[in-house]
Amino acid sequence: MKIGIIGLGLIGGSLGMDLRSQGYQIFGISRRETTCQIALQRGVADKASTNLAILQDAEIVIVCTPINAIAPTIKQLIPHLNPDTIITDVGSVKYPVVTACSKLWSNFVGGHPMAGNTDSGIDAAQPNLFVGATYVFTPTEQTMPEAVAKLKAIALELNAIPYICDARIHDRAVSWISHLPVMVSASLIKSCLSDEPEVLQLAQQFASSGFRDTSRVGGGNPELGVMMAKYNREELLRSLYNYRDNLDEIIDLIQGENWQALEGILKTNGEARPKFLN
Amino acid sequence: MKIGIIGLGLIGGSLGMDLRSQGYQIFGISRRETTCQIALQRGVADKASTNLAILQDAEIVIVCTPINAIAPTIKQLIPHLNPDTIITDVGSVKYPVVTACSKLWSNFVGGHPMAGNTDSGIDAAQPNLFVGATYVFTPTEQTMPEAVAKLKAIALELNAIPYICDARIHDRAVSWISHLPVMVSASLIKSCLSDEPEVLQLAQQFASSGFRDTSRVGGGNPELGVMMAKYNREELLRSLYNYRDNLDEIIDLIQGENWQALEGILKTNGEARPKFLN
Repeated sequence: MKIGIIGLGLIGGSLGMDLRSQGYQIFGISRRETTCQIALQRGVADKASTNLAILQDAEIVIVCTPINAIAPTIKQLIPHLNPDTIITDVGSVKYPVVTACSKLWSNFVGGHPMAGNTDSGIDAAQPNLFVGATYVFTPTEQTMPEAVAKLKAIALELNAIPYICDARIHDRAVSWISHLPVMVSASLIKSCLSDEPEVLQLAQQFASSGFRDTSRVGGGNPELGVMMAKYNREELLRSLYNYRDNLDEIIDLIQGENWQALEGILKTNGEARPKFLN
Repeated sequence: MKIGIIGLGLIGGSLGMDLRSQGYQIFGISRRETTCQIALQRGVADKASTNLAILQDAEIVIVCTPINAIAPTIKQLIPHLNPDTIITDVGSVKYPVVTACSKLWSNFVGGHPMAGNTDSGIDAAQPNLFVGATYVFTPTEQTMPEAVAKLKAIALELNAIPYICDARIHDRAVSWISHLPVMVSASLIKSCLSDEPEVLQLAQQFASSGFRDTSRVGGGNPELGVMMAKYNREELLRSLYNYRDNLDEIIDLIQGENWQALEGILKTNGEARPKFLN
């Protein structure tokens, strides 16, 4: 079976490597000729081009561009495809993407493989990136069951765990555990930069694993952070307002020296956290 | 040279192991007889007891109890010591500790080895815990230079990096990079628990490295979190108010769809963060 991958970065490149080793014929598309060359050298694709026309026989096309480029890419792609082709994407926000893309292509199924690391680009692509990761699909009432079945099978071949859910519920859940942490962590870094030079220098000297971990996602790719906020704005704002209420509660407890209540919150957190770590 | 260590947990136990392997004679004190037995078995101390009297010949005593027990422990210890003994501690807040303990013992020097991990207790003690870590000392104007010199030498033998600074500046700096992250991270966990069961279950399913890292310190030891807040309350509140302002700014930018300004903040963060990671 021929699979097209558009956008050969960390996710697209890693998908190409794994699916190719499963025996699929991978056709890769990048805007840059140099990326196509690297993709061929690194075993990401059997054929790589800047020209969407090579995807005409693909049974499945996986769009791995940034969120804002998904719908425009599909628009450009349509003239080249045969009508049975299944299109999916890998964006971290699903409802606006699914709404826009389903109008363009009836055989579109939203997807979100929940894997990654801090690096990006074709050079960061690696085999087995999706092993053990949740791979979400968000079909609508119009989606053909065969399309979902084919994509689920591919997720299983990546050794990922396919998960079907509603696009809006997906966006709400990722807002809590993925997009909110970015803004929480970003606010932390900005705060730590605010003190006078003597304290700032000491803070930099003293910072260790606690700061490193809590600040990691807030120091990540700025474009990606903006995309999350832009495309999942409503859910993220809802999460942020809730977060601010919880922060205010903790501030009030410390202000009021209510140590027992503070310890209660920290204890509940410590007990609840392992349920988020599979 | 004889060194006394009071409190044989992660820090006290690890100090004992390393200093013993440097040829010091280590006398360990724990409230529990069973901990004394484990300390001897694990090579943490040459002699271990629940009785402070065994420290009478110690040249240096390192108090490794929780912050609230440091001054009370020193009070109990005084009748057993000879007047030349240097007392130091390992608490993560320095100004209130140094103020209280200097009144009790003129040869007291505040200390804070900035190492640790998520585990605690004698079983978590390990060799080389302090390699590459900053080891802060906070002498006052009354501190004898020889006492500081001896403690610096010990820090170097642990392969830690000794650092001398004012207790109040220390507390302000650790508030930013250690105590604020705990409260920021705790508020995140509490928020993520607030949604309806369907979303919560999905959030738990979807959570991966971003949530794991950002929530780590907020899910840690509740007693330790309360101690930080209690003993460094003023500085922590100052950090928290500043943090809330920065959070509000990010909320306002997302609310107002000011994506350029949001990207600017995220970019500045990404550039500033490496200066905190030595």
